[in-house]
Amino acid sequence: MQVEIKAPYLLFLGDEPERSHAKTAIGIAHWRPESCIAQLRLPGSGVDLGLPEMTPAEAAGAGAKSLIWGVAGVGGKVPGHWVPSLFEAVEAGLDIVAGTHSSLRIIPGLADAAEKAGVSLIDIRKPPAGLPVGTGVKRSGRRLLMVGTDCVVGKKYTALAVAKEMVDRGMNAEFRATGQTGIMIAGAGMPIDAVVSDFVSGAAEVLSPDADDDHWDVIEGQGSLYHPGYAAVTLGLMHGSQPDGFVVCHQAGRTAIDAFPEFPIPTIPELIELTIATGKLTNPAIRCVGVSINTSKMSVKERTDYLAGIAAETGLPSVDPVATGVGPLVDHIVDIFK
Amino acid sequence: MQVEIKAPYLLFLGDEPERSHAKTAIGIAHWRPESCIAQLRLPGSGVDLGLPEMTPAEAAGAGAKSLIWGVAGVGGKVPGHWVPSLFEAVEAGLDIVAGTHSSLRIIPGLADAAEKAGVSLIDIRKPPAGLPVGTGVKRSGRRLLMVGTDCVVGKKYTALAVAKEMVDRGMNAEFRATGQTGIMIAGAGMPIDAVVSDFVSGAAEVLSPDADDDHWDVIEGQGSLYHPGYAAVTLGLMHGSQPDGFVVCHQAGRTAIDAFPEFPIPTIPELIELTIATGKLTNPAIRCVGVSINTSKMSVKERTDYLAGIAAETGLPSVDPVATGVGPLVDHIVDIFK
Repeated sequence: MQVEIKAPYLLFLGDEPERSHAKTAIGIAHWRPESCIAQLRLPGSGVDLGLPEMTPAEAAGAGAKSLIWGVAGVGGKVPGHWVPSLFEAVEAGLDIVAGTHSSLRIIPGLADAAEKAGVSLIDIRKPPAGLPVGTGVKRSGRRLLMVGTDCVVGKKYTALAVAKEMVDRGMNAEFRATGQTGIMIAGAGMPIDAVVSDFVSGAAEVLSPDADDDHWDVIEGQGSLYHPGYAAVTLGLMHGSQPDGFVVCHQAGRTAIDAFPEFPIPTIPELIELTIATGKLTNPAIRCVGVSINTSKMSVKERTDYLAGIAAETGLPSVDPVATGVGPLVDHIVDIFK
Repeated sequence: MQVEIKAPYLLFLGDEPERSHAKTAIGIAHWRPESCIAQLRLPGSGVDLGLPEMTPAEAAGAGAKSLIWGVAGVGGKVPGHWVPSLFEAVEAGLDIVAGTHSSLRIIPGLADAAEKAGVSLIDIRKPPAGLPVGTGVKRSGRRLLMVGTDCVVGKKYTALAVAKEMVDRGMNAEFRATGQTGIMIAGAGMPIDAVVSDFVSGAAEVLSPDADDDHWDVIEGQGSLYHPGYAAVTLGLMHGSQPDGFVVCHQAGRTAIDAFPEFPIPTIPELIELTIATGKLTNPAIRCVGVSINTSKMSVKERTDYLAGIAAETGLPSVDPVATGVGPLVDHIVDIFK
């Protein structure tokens, strides 16, 4: 009952000049190179994923199933000169997959062309129909949830890195996506913040179903319990995920919730305490297993001291998933849950 | 930007035989007699609200603006012999207002008839479009929120009773509805559990806007922080409401969350502690101002002892809103916030 996408992909970049606006495509190419057949760029593009250049027809011939809209939305409008590529994709038999601010359905004729071609226009922000109310019933298998001091602190990156580390070690693990880029990377998932609030914990239950006893679902987090707009999403995701363990994700140096200057970032011990106080409802054994910090603005010396300080304060492995890797987190998880 | 209904009402009861299935109509007639022009019943009805009997045309002639579907839904199906009354209402110029499981739009021809007559079919479970993300910005005026140990413990009743007691004392107060029956009683409100989770605290902010410094919004609660399915709704409503005070609502004798036997009801001190721990995000001064218990299954002696025990345990006024009234709660609120 998750949102699902057909791989492999043709990644569409339009003529986007800025790499920072192509994070979705860059993330997919980084984490799922095996799902990426080619890229499609228009003259003027400033982004190169290092993939073969193909037209939609060529990509379809090479086995692609979906064209992925890989760049940030531009206020809901699709640039007119991008539109022919979308028709070409549909006519080549590719689904088109897009997220926030996508306005595929208002492009005149595109929906009809898709229907005629037997392909789908997939809005990845649209939750599946028929989601249940959460039951809180204990499920088999293990679950690890990312929780953040704020939005945009590395929850998705950390979850992907932990899942990869686990798989690389031969563990039985899977990344579970809760946001649009994560869903495109994983090829499936649940756009949890778009779910009606009555069903948000139920949607999280659907996302990580019963599994083998040694299986880990590594679940992308959303929002923060300290976010005045999104904490309800965070809580519902946690209750439905009933995590055995959680990783605190944080950006070093951030002092206030992004765009909410009146709301201070909690300390990591504060976040751990509130996460356990609320999360124990559906998993009384919930515990923090480590801390993941974005220290990209720090020197090596600053980073080393900072991570050592957090480790001393919390008694938990503390890593930067990019700079140090997440090995110590997985070591600790293996040790705790053996 | 709330859901709004036009008063006064014609209350439609169909041929519902059971009073227990007519709680919506009974609640409206009890709390808003001034909004109720008449009732419309079919042969076999077992419910009498004591209102004049009128046809839709007669009610419209007497000033009614809306026909209110006042009985519980029956699995989404509208009994065929009720349908003519709905057409009569539309043709008489009345809006039709219904909630959960209403299937007004699938009754053949009704939507067209409504459009032709210039009236609306109002699904009270449909949130307004364009709700914002919550900002957490402090608003003027005072807010009192009901929080429950569970669903169906008297949160709506307590809020209505407190708002009425405040108004009767000449205070500047208003009931704010968050569920369908509450919205029908108030004539406006926010179906908070039907809001997409990203916007649930924003919807609560819209529901209780800036107000005079001495004004109280008395806000109907939803769900429970201890409910495995609905806690996210509860948290988002609380964050958006930024309550100065909250009243704990509980049903005496209930030991587990209704229909969730694995989930125990919290103690009242536990609920107070978790409510403050989570609610202080948007109002650091949040405090519990009293306890409201449904003791309807107790003898007078049992009730007296029970309420005295809760009062001793919490140091707060403890009432049964039906049996003892909510006067002591309002006394305490006046005392604290003077």
